[in-house]
Amino acid sequence: MNTKFVYMFEEGDKSMKNLLGGKGANLAEMTTLGLPIPQGFTISTEACTKYYEDNEKINDGIRAEVETSLAALEKLTGKKFGDNEMPLLVSVRSGGRASMPGMMDTVLNLGLTDVSVEGFAKKTGNPRFAYDSYRRFIQMFSDVVKGLPKQQFERVLDEIKEKKNFESDLDLTAEDLKEVIEAYKNFYKEHLGEEFPQDPRTQLMDSVEAVFGSWNNERAIIYRRMNDIPGSWGTAVNVQAMVFGNMGDTSGTGVAFTRNPSTGEAGIYGEYLLNAQGEDVVAGIRTPEPISRLEDDMPVVYKEFMDIANKLELHYKDMQDMEFTIEDKKLYFLQTRNGKRTAQAALKIAVDLVDEGLCTKEEVILKVEPKQLDQLLHPVFDVDALAAADIAGSALPASPGAAAGQVYFASEDAVAANERGERVILVRLETSPEDIEGMDAAKGILTVRGGMTSHAAVVARGMGTCCISGCGDIKIDEKAKVFTIAGKTIKEGEFISLDGSEGNIYLEDVKTIDPEISGDFARFMAWADEVRTLKVRTNADNPKDLANALEFGAEGVGLCRTEHMFFEEERISAIRQMIVSKTVEDRKEALAKLLPYQKGDFTAMYEALKELPMTVRLLDPPLHEFLPHDDADIKDLAVEMGLTFEELKETVESLHEFNPMLGHRGCRLAVTYPEIAEMQAKAIIEAAIEVKQAKGYDIVPEIMIPLVGEVNELTYVKAVVVKTVEAAIKAAGIEMKYMVGTMIEIPRAALMADVIAKEAEFFSFGTNDLTQMTFGYSRDDAGAFLDDYYKKAILESDPFARLDQSGVGQLVEMACAKGKQTRPDIKLGICGEHGGDPSSIDFCHRIGLDYVSCSPFRVPIARLAAAHAALLNK
Amino acid sequence: MNTKFVYMFEEGDKSMKNLLGGKGANLAEMTTLGLPIPQGFTISTEACTKYYEDNEKINDGIRAEVETSLAALEKLTGKKFGDNEMPLLVSVRSGGRASMPGMMDTVLNLGLTDVSVEGFAKKTGNPRFAYDSYRRFIQMFSDVVKGLPKQQFERVLDEIKEKKNFESDLDLTAEDLKEVIEAYKNFYKEHLGEEFPQDPRTQLMDSVEAVFGSWNNERAIIYRRMNDIPGSWGTAVNVQAMVFGNMGDTSGTGVAFTRNPSTGEAGIYGEYLLNAQGEDVVAGIRTPEPISRLEDDMPVVYKEFMDIANKLELHYKDMQDMEFTIEDKKLYFLQTRNGKRTAQAALKIAVDLVDEGLCTKEEVILKVEPKQLDQLLHPVFDVDALAAADIAGSALPASPGAAAGQVYFASEDAVAANERGERVILVRLETSPEDIEGMDAAKGILTVRGGMTSHAAVVARGMGTCCISGCGDIKIDEKAKVFTIAGKTIKEGEFISLDGSEGNIYLEDVKTIDPEISGDFARFMAWADEVRTLKVRTNADNPKDLANALEFGAEGVGLCRTEHMFFEEERISAIRQMIVSKTVEDRKEALAKLLPYQKGDFTAMYEALKELPMTVRLLDPPLHEFLPHDDADIKDLAVEMGLTFEELKETVESLHEFNPMLGHRGCRLAVTYPEIAEMQAKAIIEAAIEVKQAKGYDIVPEIMIPLVGEVNELTYVKAVVVKTVEAAIKAAGIEMKYMVGTMIEIPRAALMADVIAKEAEFFSFGTNDLTQMTFGYSRDDAGAFLDDYYKKAILESDPFARLDQSGVGQLVEMACAKGKQTRPDIKLGICGEHGGDPSSIDFCHRIGLDYVSCSPFRVPIARLAAAHAALLNK
Repeated sequence: MNTKFVYMFEEGDKSMKNLLGGKGANLAEMTTLGLPIPQGFTISTEACTKYYEDNEKINDGIRAEVETSLAALEKLTGKKFGDNEMPLLVSVRSGGRASMPGMMDTVLNLGLTDVSVEGFAKKTGNPRFAYDSYRRFIQMFSDVVKGLPKQQFERVLDEIKEKKNFESDLDLTAEDLKEVIEAYKNFYKEHLGEEFPQDPRTQLMDSVEAVFGSWNNERAIIYRRMNDIPGSWGTAVNVQAMVFGNMGDTSGTGVAFTRNPSTGEAGIYGEYLLNAQGEDVVAGIRTPEPISRLEDDMPVVYKEFMDIANKLELHYKDMQDMEFTIEDKKLYFLQTRNGKRTAQAALKIAVDLVDEGLCTKEEVILKVEPKQLDQLLHPVFDVDALAAADIAGSALPASPGAAAGQVYFASEDAVAANERGERVILVRLETSPEDIEGMDAAKGILTVRGGMTSHAAVVARGMGTCCISGCGDIKIDEKAKVFTIAGKTIKEGEFISLDGSEGNIYLEDVKTIDPEISGDFARFMAWADEVRTLKVRTNADNPKDLANALEFGAEGVGLCRTEHMFFEEERISAIRQMIVSKTVEDRKEALAKLLPYQKGDFTAMYEALKELPMTVRLLDPPLHEFLPHDDADIKDLAVEMGLTFEELKETVESLHEFNPMLGHRGCRLAVTYPEIAEMQAKAIIEAAIEVKQAKGYDIVPEIMIPLVGEVNELTYVKAVVVKTVEAAIKAAGIEMKYMVGTMIEIPRAALMADVIAKEAEFFSFGTNDLTQMTFGYSRDDAGAFLDDYYKKAILESDPFARLDQSGVGQLVEMACAKGKQTRPDIKLGICGEHGGDPSSIDFCHRIGLDYVSCSPFRVPIARLAAAHAALLNK
Repeated sequence: MNTKFVYMFEEGDKSMKNLLGGKGANLAEMTTLGLPIPQGFTISTEACTKYYEDNEKINDGIRAEVETSLAALEKLTGKKFGDNEMPLLVSVRSGGRASMPGMMDTVLNLGLTDVSVEGFAKKTGNPRFAYDSYRRFIQMFSDVVKGLPKQQFERVLDEIKEKKNFESDLDLTAEDLKEVIEAYKNFYKEHLGEEFPQDPRTQLMDSVEAVFGSWNNERAIIYRRMNDIPGSWGTAVNVQAMVFGNMGDTSGTGVAFTRNPSTGEAGIYGEYLLNAQGEDVVAGIRTPEPISRLEDDMPVVYKEFMDIANKLELHYKDMQDMEFTIEDKKLYFLQTRNGKRTAQAALKIAVDLVDEGLCTKEEVILKVEPKQLDQLLHPVFDVDALAAADIAGSALPASPGAAAGQVYFASEDAVAANERGERVILVRLETSPEDIEGMDAAKGILTVRGGMTSHAAVVARGMGTCCISGCGDIKIDEKAKVFTIAGKTIKEGEFISLDGSEGNIYLEDVKTIDPEISGDFARFMAWADEVRTLKVRTNADNPKDLANALEFGAEGVGLCRTEHMFFEEERISAIRQMIVSKTVEDRKEALAKLLPYQKGDFTAMYEALKELPMTVRLLDPPLHEFLPHDDADIKDLAVEMGLTFEELKETVESLHEFNPMLGHRGCRLAVTYPEIAEMQAKAIIEAAIEVKQAKGYDIVPEIMIPLVGEVNELTYVKAVVVKTVEAAIKAAGIEMKYMVGTMIEIPRAALMADVIAKEAEFFSFGTNDLTQMTFGYSRDDAGAFLDDYYKKAILESDPFARLDQSGVGQLVEMACAKGKQTRPDIKLGICGEHGGDPSSIDFCHRIGLDYVSCSPFRVPIARLAAAHAALLNK
């Protein structure tokens, strides 16, 4: 940590973003470039950290530095803070390392007091303007610094307007405003038991504290969690001399972009208002003019503005988002930053910047946020339609995209409606593998329970279907086919809309727009592919998902979950027959019925993959997942299977587990029932052999044994697999290589990876389960306490969405190192949900994995994130 | 591994036990001592390892060495293997590093063939004896080596006896026996499709293979698991020249101990039979004579025997268990070993050996098995009564001791019966904390579900009550108050008996004997305490358990589980009221009712402990454990609480979790409801203050925050605790130190221990949960697959009973190292079930823990195990 905590703008530059925040660093940079900037100083992010270290106190050292900087600013501006004649007024704004728009607090017009407002009125020759500024300041300070609700002040204002019979604020005279100020100050005193501060230094330091404090307000915490911003970064505070765009028709204020942020089209894009402050543009009371009109209004100013805008884009080599104010024909830039943009715009700008010779390919790769690519692959809402719709509730944005359609509560109803040509939204308490057909038929899925890695979430992401999960605000009655939310009841067949990217629910049919992928996408992604070293595979369990993934650039299958193939009608009855078998022979007979289905699926997958690799995982979930649980369903199934109700009920009960996540599943099933592994190995190898014989592809099957925690488990099941595979290869009379490996998803497997690597030819990190067991969180249940954890800043992000590098990451790193120690050429990949998360991908790159595997619709994100990782860790 | 695999007895000594097995090393030692031993050789344990490495084949090198050793043996004995005139006959016996009595196989009289039996008859002058030996050999070889059932041979024998109208085997003449031999050989050929082997070398090598193979038979695997013997050790095979105690009245055979193995009394103890082979003594057809009678029968032999016996005890410095044979007045020792003994005898012998000046205190400490001490603390069955009783079933020996009484199925019925003066056995599907009073009233507990660390098992061990858990063979109907086992139905009030040390169930009232603790116990334990460095604390949740533990020598409480205090009538209703509270105020009101109860419990504990330390854990289990789950009970409780059924049902449902073990519990509860931690901290500190003020004890409360995985959890809850505690200390106006620490039971906590130690003043390893999460096993469910794991040699022991040092141990070691790195004086202990397991205690000693904590009745075991650890790791 530095010993200096406060920097004049002229002391910094853009390289000091971590210390000064984005806004502060850019103001410093523009100062260095000699651009017209209202001067000021930045209290560093380290001062914020210190503030928290000192139990939310600003220490005397920092206060003294602020004092010194204030004196320097007075000298620069020729005004004095709190002066009665020529008062220096300042704005106080937050500015973190990463942009967090609107998340933290701002105070304007600071420095006005009962006395200095008189001097300000005299100096500007505009008493109404001066008193209005003071009024606004009191209101803002009371709200931001003291937590008095804005609405209360609006009410005071309304009362006075009513008394005077005024329609608009603009009708208020200077004298009226004085009355308002008195009323405001009384209200302040009444509620806080103290006078409104008349010492500008108190105003300033209280505001600085408020900005530091706002770093940990609830919305900032949520925003950081959604955007992977560490809480340890802190925010800087910028104190800047005020300039006024509302001093008459030779003044004004505006916002502009050097390129169109929606489309990426080159050319200035923005709007401005004459005789206005920034607030007024945001408030939307008056309609702003397009920026081009400024050329007519003030040609000289316009030219200067355009010159600077161009200079800034060239300087930053990126599209700039700028705020400016004109105070009596003098142009000031208040801010510049790399502008936020849509995914489409981001791609076009990236490609154009290269074509224009402004940037290299590597530079533009880093200008596109991997997560943004999601927008390109899913339907989105029509902007106008969305603006007109009301949010009825919100929950976890489990799978991105937008969907609107009619509500159905049962999988079979959803399928039937889809066949009738309806757009379907499937609403369930929670989904289970039995719902797979209904989910496939739906445009969107909404569940009451479950987190970001629940069944619904995982499957929906695989399909690219919009999904919102864990909506506890819903009361659902699946039998009666209704649900209620926000006091409203929705029946089967009624329309709702889901925004799976934001997690919002609308109770109407909001118009959606299908995505369109431009040529820029392919060009840009090819550049990204050139630089990355991590391979990107996909998690796909069926030929349809696989086809999507291949189209998005997947380089193989990292995880094919065989059990997802078991739920179609004929298959489920064979697997149920297998489960109720009393003897090995009966079980083998039932398994023999499954064999052709499994083999058929694998054949289709191998054909689509050509020679790309595929890791197939043997049966993983506990067997009870394949059986019904309520008595009525058990009764039906018993009849179907020729069993008594009691017999089947007993089987169901015997499979009941207190903690199924830690129960009889994964390789534990294969140890108890080796014949299951045998059938699956046979299906895999025979499919590979047939496709090789038919097409000539050189296929190397990768067979993965899940949930290994002890090498003897792997040894045992591997022996079954190898025996089966060798027999099939021998019978076919061909040559075929294959690999047997394991998932590292049990903490003990990571600890014992050196021993396990003796048997395993590859490791695939199952970071979902590994996270569950390392934290001791059940992903289905953790929702009950994680909200409190975020609110109380115990966790910054969902460890199921973003890999916990400091804890779980230790195990992953340890397993890589131990695995390589035993088997230097061991193949390493990740197939948990983290395989599609950019910050986790960066980690995977750094620890030397060979590939990441993610759901099909995340493949482009992973490709770009892998490119970022390669560039950032050079 | 050595390159030599076969050793003549004269080549070894007792230090070579690992290589030659116990039996082989002792035979070698006796040979060195010049004692009369039938000579022979030992095929080493490494040969067994090699046999398994070579896929269960004995390689040519080893075969050649056997051949050489055989030649040497022929030279020593002057007989020839397979000779027609003077055949060398041998026994083939297993002998591992640790004694595994009866677990593996033995073949006697090997070397007899159709031809050599004639020479043998001629040489001994006793054809009947020779043919009987051959008959026995065929039967034994067929059973042990070829797996033909013994009973089939008995049947053949019976048929011939019937035909001849003989009553006893002894009526059979040499000619009859020839007929039997023919019939045996025919039976052999019929079943195996080959002749009975006439080549003695084939007989020998097949038998050696059979002994190696028997190392992995099911009963050997089970025995090893129960006795912590690694499967990697393997067994040696001893090939020894036969001597015969059944060659007439100048021959005989016997077994003797140098001291009484039941009581420890000094003086020879044993029995013998004239004209008999070892088998006959075991078969119990004739009643053996006490060893003292040998003095009359053969005074010279007796003197020689006593001289040697004394010499052996002096040499081995321990009570010896010896087998001997007299062949025509010549005495041979066949085996000596340190004799198995009862716990009582073990203590007496240990104390006597020191008093006699034969051993040092340190030497005798190692002669008593820690686990054995259990016998001293619990009732046992009367030996004769037990012999007469039939085992109806068996399951997990969850808590040791014996109990007999009348069966009750509900906690309240058990309490009532106990008050009537009945002896009660509580039988439940599974127990829950609500059953605590019924468990307390019972002499024994039997559950259908649950493992060695289930609720029933843990609580029963704490109480010292006999318990058998996980008896899947039982069908129970708790409503109808009956259960069935082995086809028999037991109703309420009927008698059964439980052997909690072995896991056996009897359907009758078997007589029990209460334990008696001699003065030897106190003397011996004091010696153990002198050498150990590990402290031994106890897990105790109430003053009664604590009193037991203190009597057994506990040096404090390592784990006081506060929730166990919540289940008494008035308390449970307060905690339920807390759970259904909708506001913080309601919750605080309910908690206020609990405060005096908690404080009262802690006061009683602190008074009993005087100044010994106590670690109190804050509330740990998920809240649903305090609510009923079936509708009828919910309805009753709702009425009681003034709620509607629907309201209460909704609360119960909202608390439902898919994997409660990974759910909302431990410090997660305290994060959501800090007022719970506040109340508990207040109760702890106020109790400590009051006891300090009343008694003057210097109490340093240790408050433990459970289930921490992330330091921020600890920081948050610790702040609540510290604030409460400081306020109470200040209010009392006294000085009091206290400590706040955490359990390390989540893998992530071990990984992050360096960071966590910044906040934690002590770590207590909760190895039950740590094992669950590191392995990904739910202890309530793992029974479904662990049996297969043992059978298939995937696991050797139950990781919940014996700490998995290679996997879970890595995390424990890592956490210790990281903890000390941050806080060199951090206090380290273990409070999982492993704290009472000797091999785990050895591990705890080696990694430098300060203490272990275990259930009260395991405290003596832990003290002795800690002493062993200190001596063995010097």
